Amino acid sequence: MTLPPGEYADRRQRAQALMAKAGLAALLLTTEPEVRYFTGYLTRFWESPTRPWFLILPASGAPVAVIPAIGAPLMRRSGVEDIRSWNAPDLTDDGIGLLTDTLRELTGTNGAIGLPMGHETHLRMPLADFRRLGDTLGPSRLTDDRGILRRLRMVKSEAEIALIREACGIADRAFARVPQIARAGVGLDRVFRDFQRLCLDEGADFVPYLAGAAETGGYADVISPATATPLAAGDVLMLDTGLTRQGYFCDFDRNYSVGPPTAEVAAAHARLIDATRAGFDAARPGASAADLFHAMAAVCGAGPEDGRLGHGLGMQLTEWPSLIPGDHTVLEPGMVLTLEPFVRTGPGRLMVHEENIVIRDARAEWLSTPATAAIPVLEA
Amino acid sequence: MTLPPGEYADRRQRAQALMAKAGLAALLLTTEPEVRYFTGYLTRFWESPTRPWFLILPASGAPVAVIPAIGAPLMRRSGVEDIRSWNAPDLTDDGIGLLTDTLRELTGTNGAIGLPMGHETHLRMPLADFRRLGDTLGPSRLTDDRGILRRLRMVKSEAEIALIREACGIADRAFARVPQIARAGVGLDRVFRDFQRLCLDEGADFVPYLAGAAETGGYADVISPATATPLAAGDVLMLDTGLTRQGYFCDFDRNYSVGPPTAEVAAAHARLIDATRAGFDAARPGASAADLFHAMAAVCGAGPEDGRLGHGLGMQLTEWPSLIPGDHTVLEPGMVLTLEPFVRTGPGRLMVHEENIVIRDARAEWLSTPATAAIPVLEA
Repeated sequence: MTLPPGEYADRRQRAQALMAKAGLAALLLTTEPEVRYFTGYLTRFWESPTRPWFLILPASGAPVAVIPAIGAPLMRRSGVEDIRSWNAPDLTDDGIGLLTDTLRELTGTNGAIGLPMGHETHLRMPLADFRRLGDTLGPSRLTDDRGILRRLRMVKSEAEIALIREACGIADRAFARVPQIARAGVGLDRVFRDFQRLCLDEGADFVPYLAGAAETGGYADVISPATATPLAAGDVLMLDTGLTRQGYFCDFDRNYSVGPPTAEVAAAHARLIDATRAGFDAARPGASAADLFHAMAAVCGAGPEDGRLGHGLGMQLTEWPSLIPGDHTVLEPGMVLTLEPFVRTGPGRLMVHEENIVIRDARAEWLSTPATAAIPVLEA
Repeated sequence: MTLPPGEYADRRQRAQALMAKAGLAALLLTTEPEVRYFTGYLTRFWESPTRPWFLILPASGAPVAVIPAIGAPLMRRSGVEDIRSWNAPDLTDDGIGLLTDTLRELTGTNGAIGLPMGHETHLRMPLADFRRLGDTLGPSRLTDDRGILRRLRMVKSEAEIALIREACGIADRAFARVPQIARAGVGLDRVFRDFQRLCLDEGADFVPYLAGAAETGGYADVISPATATPLAAGDVLMLDTGLTRQGYFCDFDRNYSVGPPTAEVAAAHARLIDATRAGFDAARPGASAADLFHAMAAVCGAGPEDGRLGHGLGMQLTEWPSLIPGDHTVLEPGMVLTLEPFVRTGPGRLMVHEENIVIRDARAEWLSTPATAAIPVLEA
């Protein structure tokens, strides 16, 4: 359990209030952040795709875990009392019989069972087993959760914000040490490894995400893995990390010039910082996700066809909402966002900058320590 | 692309031969290992749950990628020529219209479209979108892949085996250095961080999985996150890692005694090594996954209710088959497995040992360097 115990009771009560309005007899949850949201159950064991895990939140009362026996001791320590487990993997019935019985007990023969089905969600169980569950219970009973998980998770508590801030602080310190590991001649793959080591040294529990690039005057994309190509004078190195502390992410990047930047690169970096600042200034309760897109786009020159300029984050590297023209989610205090403008620096070349913020009562607050206009310089 | 280009053409041809037998007009794939299996598309960007990714393998010809625009440059460099992309996220239609059109073009109005639906699989897209796709295409067209992905992925090529062996070698070297970072008084969370740093230092690209424990005379479970509790004399420290090289995993553990082991711990460790050896000796083409379970269980004392004693691995930390009494998968040359027996060392206490092997023509071959009977000792 990574947060104060009262936090989980509070989440449950807010969920059950929304479930009552929506007429849901239970929520059925299958993914890591969904199960953790109501229990604090934290383990890297989800990396194994072998076993399904189920958490049921009934209309009233505590959540019920229907999980592989291997997870029962840790789930018990997480404070869940009603744990029903089976010896997984079981090639004949991998928990579906037990899940069916439990759902019937908790929701009767007609209760609607809500699952997250919208954007940025998926179902973490074999599809054949889900179809079997639907056939047994009656397919129309497995319905949408009406966005309840999205709505709850999008607004963070102070304890969650503190963990995200801690993750950001770790990344801040690791980024400040990049000149120790990166200079002309060092392969990008080596920089990736050493940067992860810096993150761990500064206190990261895990470094699930690291992307980046190093090319002359900007880079072609921001999701490619590292090659062994050595850094060279004139390169812009970008490192973008999602590291975790107790299951909470930061997600931001930094750019570095290998040797003195060209005027174009220096100007692009300053413009990125301006665009980020414009997003920060626009980020207050009542503004929409789209408003932040437009505030940054006006400075960095992005168009609606250019994808998003930031997003939510928390228990996952990326969460709702998306800073795009089509997302009219209204910002509320407690929402944690990334601001992620980009600038084109030449044909097939761009630079991206990213910071993390939280929405407060009247304005936003930085969670990452915002970068200054001058791009940091590495030894050439 | 992490493997020789011919490898992807070969996989495609073998898949299409099986698809022809099964009467499938296409495979529709949505998860990281499935998409990578046919393309080599390797990126940590899958850590973001926001965007769905689709790969279609038609009955003949090359795969077609229906993916967010942000991934198109890297997918192109992976050698996929037919890439159809949209500006994701799109809250109105997040690729489903494009996917529907593409599937109609490739499979006509009646062709059966196979998706992995069995054990250890899931569908990585919003369930509401999947239902919409089914409603538009005709729900009966979205059918099981008949285990084709499982069957193909379970047998590894020499290039895949070489990458898994490389990952194992990295972990071997990191485990050998554990005495540098772990001794009485050091917190387990510190050991976890420093062990990941050793893995990176020895050449890991990423360390997606690390679990472990340190308790007196054995441990209570093997999936819990690390606490700050310092190691103490008499503890058995276990570290179990899944690190990657170019997207391929190792998965094995090592035990250490903090100070000289008790007679019970020393005997338990020796028995684990014997059990692993029994599994290794039984691991040859024609034997079944269940045979390996029984060979190890006879030595370590596990029963059928105790879960599995090993599993496949490769592009994921855990893959098919499972070494359980109920899995009768027949072993073939090229299958990569973990052998993972456990021994009870007291009430609520166990010790687990794990090695990685590959099945060859007449016998098995170690991929990890097998541990010897004597448990290594850390400074107390």
